[in-house]
Amino acid sequence: MNTPANSAYIRACRGLSVPHTPVWFMRQAGRSLPEYRELRGSGSILQAIADPVIAAEVTLQPVRRYGVDAAILFSDIVVPVHAIGFGVDVVPGRGPVMADPFKDRSDLARLRPLHPDADLPYVLETVDRVVEALGETPLIGFAGAPFTVASYLIEGGPSREFTKVKALMHSDPQLWVELMERLAEGATTFMRAQVAHGASALQLFDSWAGSLSPSEYECFALPATKAIMDATADLGVPRTLFGVGTGELLGLMATSGADVVGVDWRVPLDEARRRVGDSVSLQGNLDPALTFASTEVLDAATRRVLDAAGTRPGHIFNLGHGVLPTTNPDALKRVVDLVHAEGRAGVTK
Amino acid sequence: MNTPANSAYIRACRGLSVPHTPVWFMRQAGRSLPEYRELRGSGSILQAIADPVIAAEVTLQPVRRYGVDAAILFSDIVVPVHAIGFGVDVVPGRGPVMADPFKDRSDLARLRPLHPDADLPYVLETVDRVVEALGETPLIGFAGAPFTVASYLIEGGPSREFTKVKALMHSDPQLWVELMERLAEGATTFMRAQVAHGASALQLFDSWAGSLSPSEYECFALPATKAIMDATADLGVPRTLFGVGTGELLGLMATSGADVVGVDWRVPLDEARRRVGDSVSLQGNLDPALTFASTEVLDAATRRVLDAAGTRPGHIFNLGHGVLPTTNPDALKRVVDLVHAEGRAGVTK
Repeated sequence: MNTPANSAYIRACRGLSVPHTPVWFMRQAGRSLPEYRELRGSGSILQAIADPVIAAEVTLQPVRRYGVDAAILFSDIVVPVHAIGFGVDVVPGRGPVMADPFKDRSDLARLRPLHPDADLPYVLETVDRVVEALGETPLIGFAGAPFTVASYLIEGGPSREFTKVKALMHSDPQLWVELMERLAEGATTFMRAQVAHGASALQLFDSWAGSLSPSEYECFALPATKAIMDATADLGVPRTLFGVGTGELLGLMATSGADVVGVDWRVPLDEARRRVGDSVSLQGNLDPALTFASTEVLDAATRRVLDAAGTRPGHIFNLGHGVLPTTNPDALKRVVDLVHAEGRAGVTK
Repeated sequence: MNTPANSAYIRACRGLSVPHTPVWFMRQAGRSLPEYRELRGSGSILQAIADPVIAAEVTLQPVRRYGVDAAILFSDIVVPVHAIGFGVDVVPGRGPVMADPFKDRSDLARLRPLHPDADLPYVLETVDRVVEALGETPLIGFAGAPFTVASYLIEGGPSREFTKVKALMHSDPQLWVELMERLAEGATTFMRAQVAHGASALQLFDSWAGSLSPSEYECFALPATKAIMDATADLGVPRTLFGVGTGELLGLMATSGADVVGVDWRVPLDEARRRVGDSVSLQGNLDPALTFASTEVLDAATRRVLDAAGTRPGHIFNLGHGVLPTTNPDALKRVVDLVHAEGRAGVTK
């Protein structure tokens, strides 16, 4: 019987043989889909996330359209801190913005423990609905990694330079550790609740980790990520760790306890394999910009990823970063079909 | 007698022994300096660049304030394409914006050959004035590398995703080659003119090369950069090649013919040295974000860069990217003094 647990996606995460190379796309649910834009209308994204009927439908849309091998919960990494009242808005075209950024020790009290049943009942109801509807297709739950969430809290919004977060981590390492611990506890609690409600896998988004030097990552970001991996290991679901521009960090990320490491397009997967060793699976890594090129170029780029992945088990195809809002869904459908037809990593037909 | 040619900066570029580790900062001339803001007033940056009295003064300001080992011409990488009438504005807080972006073959005609004496007399007069005023301190001339300039021309402005430029390079490689050749010729002509007027060194800014995969860089960006290096080798001045997020590209960049490769803060200099081999010098690589941290943190980070550079000759201290507009000049002065006091790469006292 086909179940999420023996799906191609979950098997590839575990480095097992698969009937085909599994594929899904970060940000596959969202603005790039006309059916999403039609459903969402003009409300805020936090409102849509808070409505389980809408959020479940949005989560399912790309599974139906593309035939991807996994769904990912339609949510945002700032939803938990929003739910405990930190004061977050998600501004269209800009991203998460804090009304009152994290500045000093007094702000720790604004990060009280998360109680998913009370704080995020709508997310858990969305998980229930999606899992019910998906059947044998796995649902990936997720949370933001402590460093990346902290970067939003401290910078007050999206940043290119990360001056405030870097100043704080270096200047007050004790406060930094306490902040990381609180965020790690919140991420752990939230991800455990998603699995309790039926999520079959987890992804931790440390999207901005690539702004750190290797020594900064090891000292200031990796410990909290390891704590989350330790505290979710008993769940028995594969956990993926992802970031952008992390070429220098891949070896360290592979020591986190994650089952899968995500790779952006800058590092070919064969080189990424050398950096992470043999104990983890790899997710990636088509350049999302190339979904805007001609079908010939897109096909060739997709095949280059498959070639670099080779025949060794343990490859989940994905983009190197999220789907861009103006991406043509037909391009993504084309990628899915090509990956299913030609992927060879661990494939036994 | 002390001349630019036997200055610490030029000697370090050539991998020779130095009396102290040389240091300068990308974007050292500009908005971070109060004396710059006072001089500039509210005019556009292109106007300031077009005024040799102002541009020369702005170029000299950081040399006087910081005691850096080199000046870099106050200009912008889009100045040559602006001068030949492509239609460029530099929008404060945003960057270069094209009125009519490069779309197809018909736009090649808009990139006519550059005649520096006729098209950019004000830049050459600025070089004359600066060289005269600098005395034994070398002036670094510069140009934008063809890929990075093309990314502005094609995207129409600053980009995060580079979808249009990547689509064009992959979809129409013949047009791409012709575009790269035109931009390489312009950069070469412009840099040769700067040296003819007394610049002692050159830097080619391929700031956005790090958005490319290694195979894309090798195929689409490196050839034009090599052509520029070949066509400036006879000048006898050291040439630096710089980009951000280029950890995966450092080995390829070292094959360009450049004398110096710039490194951002993501790759420690000892690891960068392994990637570039023994034949080039290294420039970098303090994280510009850390100039916002406490003096203790900044000192420690500066010393980490010096430690990673070690004692081998061939290190020019710099930031890993440009000075941020809100940087406190006192922090940069502190870095200069520390580098001069404690740098050991090739230092014979």
